[in-house]
Amino acid sequence: MTFDPLWTIVEERFQRDHQNHAETIFTIGNGYLGTRGALEEGLPGDRRTTFLHGVFDDIPVSFTELANAPDWLELYILLDGERFSLAAGEVLDYTRQLDLRSGLLTRKLIWKSPQGRTTRLEFNRFASLADPHAVVLRASVTPMDYAGLVEFRAGLNGETDNENFKHWQWLNQTTASDRLTLNSRTRASQVELAQAARLTILAPADVQRESWDVHNHPTLVGRTQLQAGQSATAEKLVIFYTSRDNREPLTAANTHLDQLPAPAWDALWEPNRSAWDKEWQTCDVIIEGDDEAQIAVRFSLFQLLVAAPRKDEHVSIGAKTLSGFGYRGHAFWDTEVFMLPFFTYTQPEIARNLLSYRFHNLEGARKKARGNGFNGAQFPWESAATGEEVTPSWVPHFADRSKMVRIWTGDIEIHISAMIPFALCQYWAATGDDAFMIDRGAEIFIETARFWSSRAEWNKQAGRYEFRDVIGPDEYHEHVDNNAFTNAFARWTLQSAIRLLDWVEKKDSAAYAALKSRLDLKPAELRQWSQVAELIYFPYDKETGLIEQFEGYFARRDIDLAALEPRTESMQVILGIEGANLAQILKQPDVVMLAYMLPALFDERSLRANYDYYTARTDHTYGSSLGPSIQAIMSCKLGLQEDAYEHFMRAARADLRDVRGNAGDGIHGASAGGIWQALAFGFGGLTVTTDGWTVKPHLPKHWKRLVFRFTWRGKSYVIDLPEKGPFRLEEA
Amino acid sequence: MTFDPLWTIVEERFQRDHQNHAETIFTIGNGYLGTRGALEEGLPGDRRTTFLHGVFDDIPVSFTELANAPDWLELYILLDGERFSLAAGEVLDYTRQLDLRSGLLTRKLIWKSPQGRTTRLEFNRFASLADPHAVVLRASVTPMDYAGLVEFRAGLNGETDNENFKHWQWLNQTTASDRLTLNSRTRASQVELAQAARLTILAPADVQRESWDVHNHPTLVGRTQLQAGQSATAEKLVIFYTSRDNREPLTAANTHLDQLPAPAWDALWEPNRSAWDKEWQTCDVIIEGDDEAQIAVRFSLFQLLVAAPRKDEHVSIGAKTLSGFGYRGHAFWDTEVFMLPFFTYTQPEIARNLLSYRFHNLEGARKKARGNGFNGAQFPWESAATGEEVTPSWVPHFADRSKMVRIWTGDIEIHISAMIPFALCQYWAATGDDAFMIDRGAEIFIETARFWSSRAEWNKQAGRYEFRDVIGPDEYHEHVDNNAFTNAFARWTLQSAIRLLDWVEKKDSAAYAALKSRLDLKPAELRQWSQVAELIYFPYDKETGLIEQFEGYFARRDIDLAALEPRTESMQVILGIEGANLAQILKQPDVVMLAYMLPALFDERSLRANYDYYTARTDHTYGSSLGPSIQAIMSCKLGLQEDAYEHFMRAARADLRDVRGNAGDGIHGASAGGIWQALAFGFGGLTVTTDGWTVKPHLPKHWKRLVFRFTWRGKSYVIDLPEKGPFRLEEA
Repeated sequence: MTFDPLWTIVEERFQRDHQNHAETIFTIGNGYLGTRGALEEGLPGDRRTTFLHGVFDDIPVSFTELANAPDWLELYILLDGERFSLAAGEVLDYTRQLDLRSGLLTRKLIWKSPQGRTTRLEFNRFASLADPHAVVLRASVTPMDYAGLVEFRAGLNGETDNENFKHWQWLNQTTASDRLTLNSRTRASQVELAQAARLTILAPADVQRESWDVHNHPTLVGRTQLQAGQSATAEKLVIFYTSRDNREPLTAANTHLDQLPAPAWDALWEPNRSAWDKEWQTCDVIIEGDDEAQIAVRFSLFQLLVAAPRKDEHVSIGAKTLSGFGYRGHAFWDTEVFMLPFFTYTQPEIARNLLSYRFHNLEGARKKARGNGFNGAQFPWESAATGEEVTPSWVPHFADRSKMVRIWTGDIEIHISAMIPFALCQYWAATGDDAFMIDRGAEIFIETARFWSSRAEWNKQAGRYEFRDVIGPDEYHEHVDNNAFTNAFARWTLQSAIRLLDWVEKKDSAAYAALKSRLDLKPAELRQWSQVAELIYFPYDKETGLIEQFEGYFARRDIDLAALEPRTESMQVILGIEGANLAQILKQPDVVMLAYMLPALFDERSLRANYDYYTARTDHTYGSSLGPSIQAIMSCKLGLQEDAYEHFMRAARADLRDVRGNAGDGIHGASAGGIWQALAFGFGGLTVTTDGWTVKPHLPKHWKRLVFRFTWRGKSYVIDLPEKGPFRLEEA
Repeated sequence: MTFDPLWTIVEERFQRDHQNHAETIFTIGNGYLGTRGALEEGLPGDRRTTFLHGVFDDIPVSFTELANAPDWLELYILLDGERFSLAAGEVLDYTRQLDLRSGLLTRKLIWKSPQGRTTRLEFNRFASLADPHAVVLRASVTPMDYAGLVEFRAGLNGETDNENFKHWQWLNQTTASDRLTLNSRTRASQVELAQAARLTILAPADVQRESWDVHNHPTLVGRTQLQAGQSATAEKLVIFYTSRDNREPLTAANTHLDQLPAPAWDALWEPNRSAWDKEWQTCDVIIEGDDEAQIAVRFSLFQLLVAAPRKDEHVSIGAKTLSGFGYRGHAFWDTEVFMLPFFTYTQPEIARNLLSYRFHNLEGARKKARGNGFNGAQFPWESAATGEEVTPSWVPHFADRSKMVRIWTGDIEIHISAMIPFALCQYWAATGDDAFMIDRGAEIFIETARFWSSRAEWNKQAGRYEFRDVIGPDEYHEHVDNNAFTNAFARWTLQSAIRLLDWVEKKDSAAYAALKSRLDLKPAELRQWSQVAELIYFPYDKETGLIEQFEGYFARRDIDLAALEPRTESMQVILGIEGANLAQILKQPDVVMLAYMLPALFDERSLRANYDYYTARTDHTYGSSLGPSIQAIMSCKLGLQEDAYEHFMRAARADLRDVRGNAGDGIHGASAGGIWQALAFGFGGLTVTTDGWTVKPHLPKHWKRLVFRFTWRGKSYVIDLPEKGPFRLEEA
């Protein structure tokens, strides 16, 4: 099988023990839905999922999760009576490939059945990027050493589950000779999903067809006789509509199916291909001299692209995208801080959708603030359909399922209420989208400023405002006071809100008046924000230039991390939850992250001092997957290219090489987004402000070339380093 | 439909809102499996379950539960293309009946389809008591005003769940023209289940058949043309075997199916009928002058009989029998104290099986004792396959699912470790089964005595042994010290153990020596038991004759319960968990229960004083369902027949009238067992000791006759009150 190795993810042999990982890697999607790379014919222990954006349903303890849709992949193949399965027989030849340029997943193999029949099989599938309601797969079968009846069984299986928990209620189904429909509804959230499927079989001889109208699992069957060397191909086309996107999803699905020819492959393929070409024109990154880095970055961008909502501003991207059960589809700050910059700088209309999701869900954030006794909007640590807090309060202990561990992030990890305003500003600076800031951004700023102002605690003795009992980005330390990252961003949000409102007033006084009236904003309130911001405590030591991560951090137990390498477990597992809490070991370095996001707070000396202190104490290998890409950027800024490359490759390998052992749960979306930031802002040295942008490259020594693209104020730029000058304007 | 109203549970009209309750009531079974009365054709919101004894599987938080088996009931019927469903169309006539004498469930109805076709349908099913691996159902269909094609679709549906949670993995399936097999395995506990099914259709015209080999839902289809007034009947026979009862369950199921004729109904029916006749000969109760009481008692006994393991000494009966999801199939003291006496006195071989379950699971109880730092065996508050503690530590709060409530019963409700010894003694007294006591009972006594002795805490100041931080039977009060019931039974267990061992030594010195050696029992240990027993604190007030339920109880807030009647909620819901804990209100009266079980601790004055004090403070209506039957017995003993009858009817209506609103979760097994005790020991006034038995009746005034049966030392007696003398010996 020929392929472009710099555009293709390849699995060269079938490894049964690694299939959950492979399923994640071979996820396809189109921003409307995502389907893991499970096998059409099934495999015991597989996690075959299709998630649709926004289709959440209730579960015990963790509140809500993306509901694994009725299975459209299912295609059973009987070869002269023997059921094809990689759990039996012998695999004589095997390749699976994901073409990142087009989203086409291909599997080719030769399989010898338990009874000795040898068959060549090829499977292809894609989720159309041009027609996001359509997914299609096809399977070609060629008996090599026998003649016999080949049977295809293509069902819509409504009996799917999320790790054994079922979400769907059957509503109705139809079967005809060549098509099926299945109409389902989530049990609690009552989202309706309609699927219409058609099975087309191309074969040299006659095809006998049956439809099996089994409850909640309608199935189309086609049988045909093949001689050795002859081939038959089955195409399964499935259309998805939900009540989130259509008032009559079943009618829409049927109509849509009617409009596609049988077979539909070619009609769907060309538009899909050209839609993907357009995508890559906005964002492709070229790395010469490092094929592993090249393929890893394209893979990361592909996974972000297939998860990006292009036509829906009421959904976000979960921490594990649409590619696995991990974190149940919930969105964290991972979206705004780690993934969003890629969209902001390459497809700002997607960034706008993602930011609008937060705007539309302000009511959930207001509810959380009210419930905790604060003003304004406190964004949820984990967010799903409504923007209400959906972090589970308790989860079973990983080592002893009879014990429950209290999860505090939903209660006290509060910096997310500054991250959304920060992402808004980044979007605004890059796009100049003033209308969005006036219409939606300003309200988010007002409401988060209100939250921060009411959350601040006045310490009379010290004459300062404090934030006590929080968790910063570094989650090894819970219930800390005056986390530097949190305090700095509280101040930033309050000050930025004041500046923004000042700007709105000048830019559009009518809009400002309307906003003031609607949100009951009084001058005294702005004065209060200003006063609070000025007096927020920030623990900077002028002597050393060090910023203490939180009060008392420097007094905690200091552990020589280097002496413990190499490790195979996180420091939290090694020390225990309490042990890690009492040590200076970090899951990710808050202060280094702060230096990345708010560089003006640091001079050169202070940056170096904090980088050195905290880098040595960070669990880079098994701590947070959010860490390495940012660490790479900061290493670049300090001219530490070798360190930067090591951190970068740690991020690049997170999913492809499953270095953390949990890639089976889904793509590490923040890591994928961080990879793009590391390339643009780290190795590329791009700096963007409201006034313009500059590039100051820091390429790893062995890289011959780095090309990346971005848009600024509506214009697209290509940065081609180091030979071809700092940049060229993209020809639109 | 004619029927014997004193032997039949009748549903006279279809009430869709009450179907979960009806499913519980119409549960059938045979001691091997139980199937709720769900409709063959399905109904949205139904809870269609089949539970097999001992087939547990893991779940989050609550550890383990009976896994709802692949559905055997499923039979879809298409009437000239319209699918029969009570969720649509119109029910013109309807009766459902459960014949308690034979276990036959019958549903007859006339249904008008949405398109206007009128059809007469009759469904029958039973789980053979004579051949417990076999269940059979049949459906007869008669078009009344049309001619058309009638289609039956009989599947084995492996996609069942327990309240949305799936337990079964598909292993394999086969389909032939008239039969199916489905082989499944529980995900974690790896219990294999094989089902073999056959569909037989009797019709005036030809029958076309198909088999639909859909994955995990194989289905047999039969179609036939009917003229108006003609009938067709489909019989679905299903055989169950598991790896718990057979090494090759699939082979066993197939062989078993082969041995039954097609149709199998008649061949199965007669042995089933005669097996049921034999059952009722051991235990039927006749009440004349009170039809509601008559039918309620027969219903209760039926539900105990269908749940009773006749050939398996490794399983118990869960609190909700095999009839619902409630308590996940876990067994509590409900079995030994409330249900067991019925079996001990009517079918002691079943009681022996149930007691053997505890013997075989001693290792789980030893593990619990070790884990808590005690000696011997501490029986689990909730017990499942292994006898390890399976009480969930945390459950979601009923009113706010985001909060978790700590459940302490598994930690500190310890009296169950005396209840099993107590039930052993009751069994021994009734049966004289010395061998059982030597072989199995003695070990349980030794190990529980060890537990009690090590659990006792020496209070040096007071010079007594105490049991602090416990929960007694009354669960409104947690973390109490010196619960009178617990302390009294600790003493009883220690003293009885010593007496029993003394008896074993005399009866069978070789067995005694072997026991001593195997369990490393030293004379010093027995002396220690004796000393602890003697000094266990028991809070009896000689002045008043009152026993304080636990230390400090009398000082808690006293609430006038009578003033709050009528209520529609439990006092715990009204006062809150903490509020109930701080009041004298009881879920069930420990001291009255103690007077029932250990009457020698009470003189007449003390009995009356405690009865009056605690009865006034007990939540009889919405407290524990374990309370009313025992309360009825104690009312009888004090000559308060009217009160007794009121309490008795509260128990009798628990399930049939769903007075607690939770009968949909399953039968209240303890209440059913308590009803028999109330009849025998309360109204019948039966007293049994090792020396013999006496009867001192206390019939409610309007009862004309009460007949009940029991066995004592291998002989069966019929007590026929009041006319025909105190008793007659049953003719065997």
